[in-house]
Amino acid sequence: MALAVSIEHQGDTCAPQAVDRLAAMQALVHDDLAAVNCLIIERMQSPVSLIPHLAGHITASGGKRLRPIVTLLASRLCGYEGERHQTLAACVEFIHTATLLHDDVVDASDLRRGTATANAIWGNEASVLVGDFLFSRAFQLMVEDGSLEVLAILSGASAVIAEGEVMQLLTSNDTSTSETDYLAVITAKTARLFAAAAEIGAVVCESTAEQRQALYDYGEALGMSFQLVDDALDYTAAQATLGKTIGDDFRQGKITLPVVLAFARGNERERSFWRRTLEDGGYRNSDLSQAIDLLDKYNAVADTLTRAKKYAERARAALDGFPDNAYRSALGDAADFAVERAY
Amino acid sequence: MALAVSIEHQGDTCAPQAVDRLAAMQALVHDDLAAVNCLIIERMQSPVSLIPHLAGHITASGGKRLRPIVTLLASRLCGYEGERHQTLAACVEFIHTATLLHDDVVDASDLRRGTATANAIWGNEASVLVGDFLFSRAFQLMVEDGSLEVLAILSGASAVIAEGEVMQLLTSNDTSTSETDYLAVITAKTARLFAAAAEIGAVVCESTAEQRQALYDYGEALGMSFQLVDDALDYTAAQATLGKTIGDDFRQGKITLPVVLAFARGNERERSFWRRTLEDGGYRNSDLSQAIDLLDKYNAVADTLTRAKKYAERARAALDGFPDNAYRSALGDAADFAVERAY
Repeated sequence: MALAVSIEHQGDTCAPQAVDRLAAMQALVHDDLAAVNCLIIERMQSPVSLIPHLAGHITASGGKRLRPIVTLLASRLCGYEGERHQTLAACVEFIHTATLLHDDVVDASDLRRGTATANAIWGNEASVLVGDFLFSRAFQLMVEDGSLEVLAILSGASAVIAEGEVMQLLTSNDTSTSETDYLAVITAKTARLFAAAAEIGAVVCESTAEQRQALYDYGEALGMSFQLVDDALDYTAAQATLGKTIGDDFRQGKITLPVVLAFARGNERERSFWRRTLEDGGYRNSDLSQAIDLLDKYNAVADTLTRAKKYAERARAALDGFPDNAYRSALGDAADFAVERAY
Repeated sequence: MALAVSIEHQGDTCAPQAVDRLAAMQALVHDDLAAVNCLIIERMQSPVSLIPHLAGHITASGGKRLRPIVTLLASRLCGYEGERHQTLAACVEFIHTATLLHDDVVDASDLRRGTATANAIWGNEASVLVGDFLFSRAFQLMVEDGSLEVLAILSGASAVIAEGEVMQLLTSNDTSTSETDYLAVITAKTARLFAAAAEIGAVVCESTAEQRQALYDYGEALGMSFQLVDDALDYTAAQATLGKTIGDDFRQGKITLPVVLAFARGNERERSFWRRTLEDGGYRNSDLSQAIDLLDKYNAVADTLTRAKKYAERARAALDGFPDNAYRSALGDAADFAVERAY
């Protein structure tokens, strides 16, 4: 009964054990993370005051800093002792923030992490442009760092993220979307930046190609797990838990794995329901509870979470070749954190 | 009578002598430009077919390729004989195209260069995301080229362009915008990319710091001239000439120099008219002709063009230290081209 557990969620981001685990990860790179936060605030400044104002709104609104934490932990895992990883972690967070700002325009979202979105307050125009600014700023920071390898990783990741977002746009309102299509979308739009965030850790240490690949694989699997759980939570979590309204994806006609599974397993009458609500824009207030009943009937949320767990295990396994230290444990914990949010 | 000349405009982009001048510039770098066009088409490809489809729509819709031509001419002027300038010219055009896609979302424009805008056909979401893709692609191309100097120039320019666009957003519907504010907006949103396009020519040749600065100054002045004329044409040109509807800026409440001058020179009754139409959203069909009458009364378009000519002269003067050859002539012609479009 995947749907029952949501009632037990507490805290402002997720379930209690997940909160503890995130706190432990943050504690391990506390000083680094503080430096990253300073860099983020320092480098989002502009004489055009709306820019830091709007960027500050989104960076301050409860982000977990999971991607920069991955960069910090991965760098430390590879034995890095300098400060470049702080700058590069800030770059990763800037790119993430830019995509969030553009995402909210694309989704026409009013809430993110329980707070009004920037576009709801300042309009789509400002969100698009401040996203562009942060994106440019990320590249300026990378140029200052001076590594063409890092620039290649993050410019490549950015292009793939945009491709993933366009793919998602194309699968929207399309109930014929397959699990393969869905996985291609989330690999590109979410997992790729996690993969890049982890890979950068190996690059700053000039680690071996194997270690670099291992961290890439780790990040990619972590990102998949993370997105799968997010997509499950959309149908189960209370607003205070996920920071968005339950059923947002459903109302937007977004085709996520729970729906893909329920549609594939449903009978013709049920498929008509999904087509009416997701494709034809015929959404009515009572539809969400019927959707949740159908997801429940076909174990669609539970099976989504099972896949998330597999990716989390794959993420852990990718770290096997690294020394068994606190950083490796924390990266493993990040994978558990991704999944535990659902319980 | 700045307003009368618009009737004489011919051709699909501008006045006859300007058309000839543009053709001569294009002819001088014909092979380079053909290579740039190939690169643009080749590198906007993606397995996500909507991306090249949408990007192809905007890159094919009559762009003059003025910015990449500036990069090509500036490189040749500095004696460059390799092929890197082609790649970098394509980067400049990708960044320009990305900003156009995001601009059209911001302006909610339906027409650009006389053709339906991408956002009017495919929606804002796709335009934002394909803009992000092209922007990322530009950085990938720069990374392949391998020059951190070029990466610094274009990441810096991109950040400033975004700042300029946000400033423009903030001055929209604000009749208290001063000429200084307006100049700051267009310096950032338009002139900076022209400056970068020209500066890159010096960087690929490893020219002296003086030459680099001279080309930057040239590009900046050219960009100012170009934008001033664009803003004048909005009140004078037939749609076929500018490729957009006459009075677009006026209807959008955009505060450009003609309006700034007419507002400053107007009496209280006239200022009330500008406030009602530009600030209060009280636009009526007959307002545009009244606005044009007021601009005419105060020579606001003519004086905007006078400023454009001064910037064009400044652009020409910035080239004084370079050898007097065909490339320098062509860059000078680009400045004349910017202004001649209005006559």
